[in-house]
Amino acid sequence: MSIVVKNRERADRGAVEALAGFGVATIHEAQGRVGLMAPYMRPIYPGALITGTAVTVSVPPGDNWMIHVAVEQCQPGDVLVVAPTSACDCGYFGDLLATSLKARGVLGLIIEAGVRDVRSLTEMRFPVWSRYISAQGTVKATLGDVNMPLVCAGALVNPGDAVVADDDGVCVVPRQRVGAVLASSRAREQKEASTRARLAAGELGLDVYDMREALKEKGLTYRDGKD
Amino acid sequence: MSIVVKNRERADRGAVEALAGFGVATIHEAQGRVGLMAPYMRPIYPGALITGTAVTVSVPPGDNWMIHVAVEQCQPGDVLVVAPTSACDCGYFGDLLATSLKARGVLGLIIEAGVRDVRSLTEMRFPVWSRYISAQGTVKATLGDVNMPLVCAGALVNPGDAVVADDDGVCVVPRQRVGAVLASSRAREQKEASTRARLAAGELGLDVYDMREALKEKGLTYRDGKD
Amino acid sequence: MSIVVKNRERADRGAVEALAGFGVATIHEAQGRVGLMAPYMRPIYPGALITGTAVTVSVPPGDNWMIHVAVEQCQPGDVLVVAPTSACDCGYFGDLLATSLKARGVLGLIIEAGVRDVRSLTEMRFPVWSRYISAQGTVKATLGDVNMPLVCAGALVNPGDAVVADDDGVCVVPRQRVGAVLASSRAREQKEASTRARLAAGELGLDVYDMREALKEKGLTYRDGKD
Amino acid sequence: MSIVVKNRERADRGAVEALAGFGVATIHEAQGRVGLMAPYMRPIYPGALITGTAVTVSVPPGDNWMIHVAVEQCQPGDVLVVAPTSACDCGYFGDLLATSLKARGVLGLIIEAGVRDVRSLTEMRFPVWSRYISAQGTVKATLGDVNMPLVCAGALVNPGDAVVADDDGVCVVPRQRVGAVLASSRAREQKEASTRARLAAGELGLDVYDMREALKEKGLTYRDGKD
Amino acid sequence: MSIVVKNRERADRGAVEALAGFGVATIHEAQGRVGLMAPYMRPIYPGALITGTAVTVSVPPGDNWMIHVAVEQCQPGDVLVVAPTSACDCGYFGDLLATSLKARGVLGLIIEAGVRDVRSLTEMRFPVWSRYISAQGTVKATLGDVNMPLVCAGALVNPGDAVVADDDGVCVVPRQRVGAVLASSRAREQKEASTRARLAAGELGLDVYDMREALKEKGLTYRDGKD
Amino acid sequence: MSIVVKNRERADRGAVEALAGFGVATIHEAQGRVGLMAPYMRPIYPGALITGTAVTVSVPPGDNWMIHVAVEQCQPGDVLVVAPTSACDCGYFGDLLATSLKARGVLGLIIEAGVRDVRSLTEMRFPVWSRYISAQGTVKATLGDVNMPLVCAGALVNPGDAVVADDDGVCVVPRQRVGAVLASSRAREQKEASTRARLAAGELGLDVYDMREALKEKGLTYRDGKD
Repeated sequence: MSIVVKNRERADRGAVEALAGFGVATIHEAQGRVGLMAPYMRPIYPGALITGTAVTVSVPPGDNWMIHVAVEQCQPGDVLVVAPTSACDCGYFGDLLATSLKARGVLGLIIEAGVRDVRSLTEMRFPVWSRYISAQGTVKATLGDVNMPLVCAGALVNPGDAVVADDDGVCVVPRQRVGAVLASSRAREQKEASTRARLAAGELGLDVYDMREALKEKGLTYRDGKD
Repeated sequence: MSIVVKNRERADRGAVEALAGFGVATIHEAQGRVGLMAPYMRPIYPGALITGTAVTVSVPPGDNWMIHVAVEQCQPGDVLVVAPTSACDCGYFGDLLATSLKARGVLGLIIEAGVRDVRSLTEMRFPVWSRYISAQGTVKATLGDVNMPLVCAGALVNPGDAVVADDDGVCVVPRQRVGAVLASSRAREQKEASTRARLAAGELGLDVYDMREALKEKGLTYRDGKD
Repeated sequence: MSIVVKNRERADRGAVEALAGFGVATIHEAQGRVGLMAPYMRPIYPGALITGTAVTVSVPPGDNWMIHVAVEQCQPGDVLVVAPTSACDCGYFGDLLATSLKARGVLGLIIEAGVRDVRSLTEMRFPVWSRYISAQGTVKATLGDVNMPLVCAGALVNPGDAVVADDDGVCVVPRQRVGAVLASSRAREQKEASTRARLAAGELGLDVYDMREALKEKGLTYRDGKD
Repeated sequence: MSIVVKNRERADRGAVEALAGFGVATIHEAQGRVGLMAPYMRPIYPGALITGTAVTVSVPPGDNWMIHVAVEQCQPGDVLVVAPTSACDCGYFGDLLATSLKARGVLGLIIEAGVRDVRSLTEMRFPVWSRYISAQGTVKATLGDVNMPLVCAGALVNPGDAVVADDDGVCVVPRQRVGAVLASSRAREQKEASTRARLAAGELGLDVYDMREALKEKGLTYRDGKD
Repeated sequence: MSIVVKNRERADRGAVEALAGFGVATIHEAQGRVGLMAPYMRPIYPGALITGTAVTVSVPPGDNWMIHVAVEQCQPGDVLVVAPTSACDCGYFGDLLATSLKARGVLGLIIEAGVRDVRSLTEMRFPVWSRYISAQGTVKATLGDVNMPLVCAGALVNPGDAVVADDDGVCVVPRQRVGAVLASSRAREQKEASTRARLAAGELGLDVYDMREALKEKGLTYRDGKD
Repeated sequence: MSIVVKNRERADRGAVEALAGFGVATIHEAQGRVGLMAPYMRPIYPGALITGTAVTVSVPPGDNWMIHVAVEQCQPGDVLVVAPTSACDCGYFGDLLATSLKARGVLGLIIEAGVRDVRSLTEMRFPVWSRYISAQGTVKATLGDVNMPLVCAGALVNPGDAVVADDDGVCVVPRQRVGAVLASSRAREQKEASTRARLAAGELGLDVYDMREALKEKGLTYRDGKD
């Protein structure tokens, strides 16, 4: 049976938007290093950063029918997250779907498959993180699910979770944890700011992080190359 | 035996040039979704679009001698299509060969192997779609064929076929079909233009494409996430 | 046992800097086609070219502790070369470490693993050639070695060797051979300049390189496609 | 924080054992084609079939400490399911750990990383499905979790879920669904038995499945190759 | 449009069967080193050797409907050759289809996608060369072609061509060339027999193939490691 | 320039043979976890274990001429180690070369490329660890080196080093370290024997290795799943 769940609760909009102040690396650290998608998920153009709420779509290989179904479930601030039920490099998504999503206020697409029309998407500034780029089209013959939990590129995504994506990759923050992760991201960033200043001034991480004793205990040995 | 075929008939120049009005995705659709190379064929810089006629070169692994032989067979408007007889990541092609091809009016290179000097090639605006980028040079010791049919990145290429390449990948249009594919590309584009306008105005693909009934028949079920 | 070797002799600074006049492809050719890293080592942004002296770091999978140790061993003009003891796609390195290295005059990073904060690194113009881009952080729990010989992406790197990296990849020049390789690079470049001019003027490589006789002897046959 | 959850409820033992009457392909079909791990998970020797209950282990790259912790949580009939927090090809597991698990009645190992001592494991008939085979050892320095939900090779695994593995791969059946999946597997098998007999007798699937009309409606056309 | 071509002319049965006296490596050499599929095509069990005539099937990703259509076109001595229109790792084929093909005298399957029920297939001794093994099933919703030329794993296959497969991989011999290739295979084998005897007796290939002079001319230099 | 070094000093024969009492995993541990080749190096049949001394061969892509040259340099107890100068999946080696090597007492082949005639090699019991299996032949046109240091599958191999290979992969032991590694292998094995007995008797690794305190200090927390 194929199901579309409507009106899924989303993570708090304000908190999700505030995550945009941080990158994927910081947020991933701040939530305890979980929820990162595999590194083969790459942006189609550099420099994009989005933070939105997930509308999930499970699609058969080579069939993008459910993406059309999913568009209707999208709200401004959403991010579409698409995973095929088995590995497929087809181009599921192009400029027409992007036009439609943009008209609904969707911020971008995360897809563990292929995307096409990347020049148009780049010109439209509709960011996509995908596993492949391919002109190969898909059919509309078989159903899947919308807004059901799924695994995308190794990460569990529940509908309404926050999704953060930038040049480093894609990270999922569970809906209920967005506030806490935002707080830890801020704390982490503040702490890093002073560290960054010290390192820029030439201090060594060995001293800033006070590592010398621990390294010595572990058995680190220094030798002079000139001897 | 190693063969070079001279004066291969090319696809109609005017029609091939007219294909440049469309992208690879549109042309691939317009010809019935055949002839696409594997998605590992990527451009060395973004934004290039070429449409030309194929001069094919079959090369041994790690040996680019036949590319030098092929240059002589090239005419303005041609695209060089190179496939190794077994998988090889060597850099078969650099700025000297590009200089030579450019002097003959060749539009670009498609190679299911490696390319080098990519910074120079980018500055020259000589576009290349390749499987690898590698500085590893090749030898000139063993022969291959020029202008014989070959399989490049999973696509059959006959000499004189039209080759279209952009940021989405590379597609081959058989010589005799170029006119027909051009016509269908135009038809497709026109149809998409009005669809695009409707989607941009906020209409849903579900309605534009009239999918709701078919989805219901297939068993699509809606559920409210708030219940 | 884990070892840090201090004060490793470096390749001659002047000669290493002079290598910057050539690209990786030329230098690799000039030294007899050895020392090239695997083509999966890609720059995080296009256009960078560095030539420096290697400080080598062997790291456990998922553990970047030794990179912090290595920073102290770096001098202006060095390049950090990091290889994990088994394949790992973690993001070992980000903007804080880059800040620290930059403060010490280090020119860039070569890492057969992952890197993160690539947007910041790009803005800082701190070039990195890596196998992966990933936000996944690492721990600081297990030791490795600094300034010991290692294999990085298939190439043997001895501490103090010259490392050259550009859009074509990464090449290692043994410390003692830098002068000789510089000389052959110059010779090669000079020779290529005149060849380039002839090719640009429309002469064929077949004639410039005088290949016709050898091809004929090997059995190359011409046939007319119109017959 | 690192957590070990003790006494996780397991799927019903009798039902799990009954699944052994079917292969992964049948069970995967019977539960609606969800829960299959990626096809890179391969058995170290052919012919093994296990059905057990999952004890899950999340491990850092290159660190197998938590596997030792997990052994204590295992009961007869369990299957250990191990996933690294980032991709790693180390050999996390060898004959000593297998000896220990076997002593506790554990049926096998599923690991999205490397395994070693495969000859000994084969002789012991301790089956392992892994992504890699590698002699590279691991350290014991950093914690992970035991019996927390995780994603292994693209499939969500909750502790106590049924895990089925054979030459076709690995499939996860949620704890609460084991009874239902067992029933559908039986139904499916019965239906297939009669189909198999008809096909063996030379009837065509086109007729057995009554496909001819549907194919015709879709536009399937027959042509004679002799014309 | 989707087409099934009936009654395609096959390569001469007697000659095809005679090819079974040679392995893929010999036949590939004998026909000039063309027609070999990519090395990722592996047998599901060792030791099988088949030589038959190709019935080709082009299938959409994740859809095996056309395989059912193709069965009807098979004759004793045929080999089914299946290629998806884009990369897909689904398990298109299992023991039911094998039962059906076996009933029709089909010798085996070549598929550039996934296969399942490999234990049953092994027990049935129905050999399959595939790119993947996966339990993931397929749908029956979209058409493809039967007995049209296709590219499978990089090799062009025309219906009726001879297909040879063993532990070394899969090779295609064009229908019209089977007789000639058989003759050269025999010649090659005879020549190799005497070479084998000489090598087994301790003669060196350097002398058997009379290579010393050519090596010397190329510049091969000997040095003593004891000096 | 291409060089063949004759009469390279080998590791002590007795010690090398004694290594056969241990597997790759043990030896790799015993020498401090260095020298392991990448896990894509797989045996063509299961169950083989060889320990010999390396004769190294550097070959161009698609060219096996130097293997013929290398045969002459082999002595009983040697293992041929072949690495291409760039990635190549050709079948460099088949039953004729194996016949010749066997006649000289060579124990097996390690090749970071392809091998063919695997059925014959299996029947001859001539073990090969390779990256690929492929029937694609090679040419004899370009030189390489014999008995010069090279990097094979990520491991540095010096001529005369000990090479150990089994179902877990391939490990290189530097010539001068063979004695020491043999001693540590023995020590390791002895220690493991008693551990194995304790684990087989049902003791937990947590207790055998005395890990509980360290885990607690690191912050490991237990929770009951029934609460």
